[in-house]
Amino acid sequence: MTSLTRSSVILRRRPVGEPKIDDFEMAQDAIPTPGEGQVVTRTLWLSVDPYMRGRLSDQKSYAAPVQIGAPMEGEGIGEVIASGDPAFAVGDIVLGTRLWQSHVLCKAAGLVKLDPSAAPIQAYLGVLGMPGTTAYSGMKDIGQVKQGETVVVSAASGAVGSVAGQLAKRAGARVVGVAGGPDKCLWVQEVLHFDECIDHRGGDVAGMLADACPNGVDVYFENVGGAVQQAVFGLLNPHARMIMCGMVAEYNNTERAPGPNLMSVVRNRIRIEGLIVSDKPERFAEWRAIASPWVKDGSLHYRETVIDGLENAPDALVQLLRGRNFGKMLVRVA
Amino acid sequence: MTSLTRSSVILRRRPVGEPKIDDFEMAQDAIPTPGEGQVVTRTLWLSVDPYMRGRLSDQKSYAAPVQIGAPMEGEGIGEVIASGDPAFAVGDIVLGTRLWQSHVLCKAAGLVKLDPSAAPIQAYLGVLGMPGTTAYSGMKDIGQVKQGETVVVSAASGAVGSVAGQLAKRAGARVVGVAGGPDKCLWVQEVLHFDECIDHRGGDVAGMLADACPNGVDVYFENVGGAVQQAVFGLLNPHARMIMCGMVAEYNNTERAPGPNLMSVVRNRIRIEGLIVSDKPERFAEWRAIASPWVKDGSLHYRETVIDGLENAPDALVQLLRGRNFGKMLVRVA
Repeated sequence: MTSLTRSSVILRRRPVGEPKIDDFEMAQDAIPTPGEGQVVTRTLWLSVDPYMRGRLSDQKSYAAPVQIGAPMEGEGIGEVIASGDPAFAVGDIVLGTRLWQSHVLCKAAGLVKLDPSAAPIQAYLGVLGMPGTTAYSGMKDIGQVKQGETVVVSAASGAVGSVAGQLAKRAGARVVGVAGGPDKCLWVQEVLHFDECIDHRGGDVAGMLADACPNGVDVYFENVGGAVQQAVFGLLNPHARMIMCGMVAEYNNTERAPGPNLMSVVRNRIRIEGLIVSDKPERFAEWRAIASPWVKDGSLHYRETVIDGLENAPDALVQLLRGRNFGKMLVRVA
Repeated sequence: MTSLTRSSVILRRRPVGEPKIDDFEMAQDAIPTPGEGQVVTRTLWLSVDPYMRGRLSDQKSYAAPVQIGAPMEGEGIGEVIASGDPAFAVGDIVLGTRLWQSHVLCKAAGLVKLDPSAAPIQAYLGVLGMPGTTAYSGMKDIGQVKQGETVVVSAASGAVGSVAGQLAKRAGARVVGVAGGPDKCLWVQEVLHFDECIDHRGGDVAGMLADACPNGVDVYFENVGGAVQQAVFGLLNPHARMIMCGMVAEYNNTERAPGPNLMSVVRNRIRIEGLIVSDKPERFAEWRAIASPWVKDGSLHYRETVIDGLENAPDALVQLLRGRNFGKMLVRVA
């Protein structure tokens, strides 16, 4: 144990619009001792994800909001430093801690022991974890891409979008990404081998998308909302599928912007479906089994943005919601 | 043969906004003679349906638009007056003629011979025909209503909505209709036995709907669009299904109104899906087999608005798009 004191990132108040660093504060207490069936972990990595904006708000959602005065919640990886469960030994690396704390007391059940030799452990928060599984489930359960179809993926360099598009390429589709800025677009085209990538900061998104999708759009993997959504919506083909994974461009809005008129949904028999990965928990292990060899052989590409220090986790979230990350946003804690 | 002259309703010009009677005109020519594999029918009934507004416009859709100078298209029932196909005899009553004409020359293949003793023949244009099948397919293929769920049906007294809601009642759901005017609402509640019916002309639709759906909405059978759609959208529960059958309140609009913001589709894993009944042609015979006994025993209720005379078919369409019909809109031709 490196310290007897535990640090936590606490929600100080609910953000209005864009979250600010001082909506959070640090707090200290003593490192707890595990009871029976519990372990205490030293946090190594925290995942920072767009969905977290929703947890900061008080509105009804699929998960309860984080309470004011309570530690922020989110996926993490830790090392067991004290165990009250015979299945876990000190030194085990585990996935499944759920708090922005330097040391987490948690139930042993539900933790997944990681093999640090199989992949860099932080990959289990990104390409092999929740975001990767989200992409996999969206494509398998809703997208069902067929060879020769056109697939558009927004936030294409992100933790979810980069996997979604690579899966669509493996299925034989024409894949068009949308990303923010030339660096991301270059990576999406040159490394991920999407057929095209459009810079949504680069002007006439609707026109560029129409040019990039001469046969219309069969599947839209939606991560952003806003103007990109409106532009893709107008290109959807008969029997198109729209995988509603997120709308990060609108998460900080205090009022909901109008959406697309749904007349074309009737005319084109479009299917629009929301996706929350935890609805199908079996997809996590499925995806780890499918994707681990691809990560090992280097055929599944991913990027990470790493911020150091638990105290910088709120800033990592603010930057993520501004699109300042490049790939999976991570906080390295220990 | 009652006459050697055939009358046709011709599209004179494409309507802008609400269709006008003089967007159509009558034309006369000689009754044709059937070739091999063809029959000539004397038209008895024509179906008038909301989707026809789309066929009058030039925009891309799932079916080609009616051409200017050509007869208007739509389902009909006729009596064979001359046959070039051994499977059809003079006097046969057939479903499947497709033109607004007093006498129709058509391929025999694709016509369905009706048994006039089984049900009033015009029922095969409504409750047992395309609208009834649309309701059935929407509920079976998208809605999948479970006992105890709340189902909202717009245009609840219409040819599609009235069947959709009765199917939801048979599935054990709480069913709330939306209709225009107290007469329709009364019929929906008292005869169709929906649990409630809201008059969308009666004021605060959103408030009335929220009161009528204290547990939210699990399935929305959408026929109208506009303000009713916006109101229902805000009440959709997690895992709700929205059957996009039509948006008749918006068909005459020259510009598309904004639609609902789709953020709740992600959060609530809502499924929105468009429905065109002809995509699943097998549903027609399935539904006739299921529903014919219910029509015979009086347990499946329906209403008809009958307009007399082929020359009044354009007015029937104008009135339908204004919601002036009560139940299935029909033109009695002969």
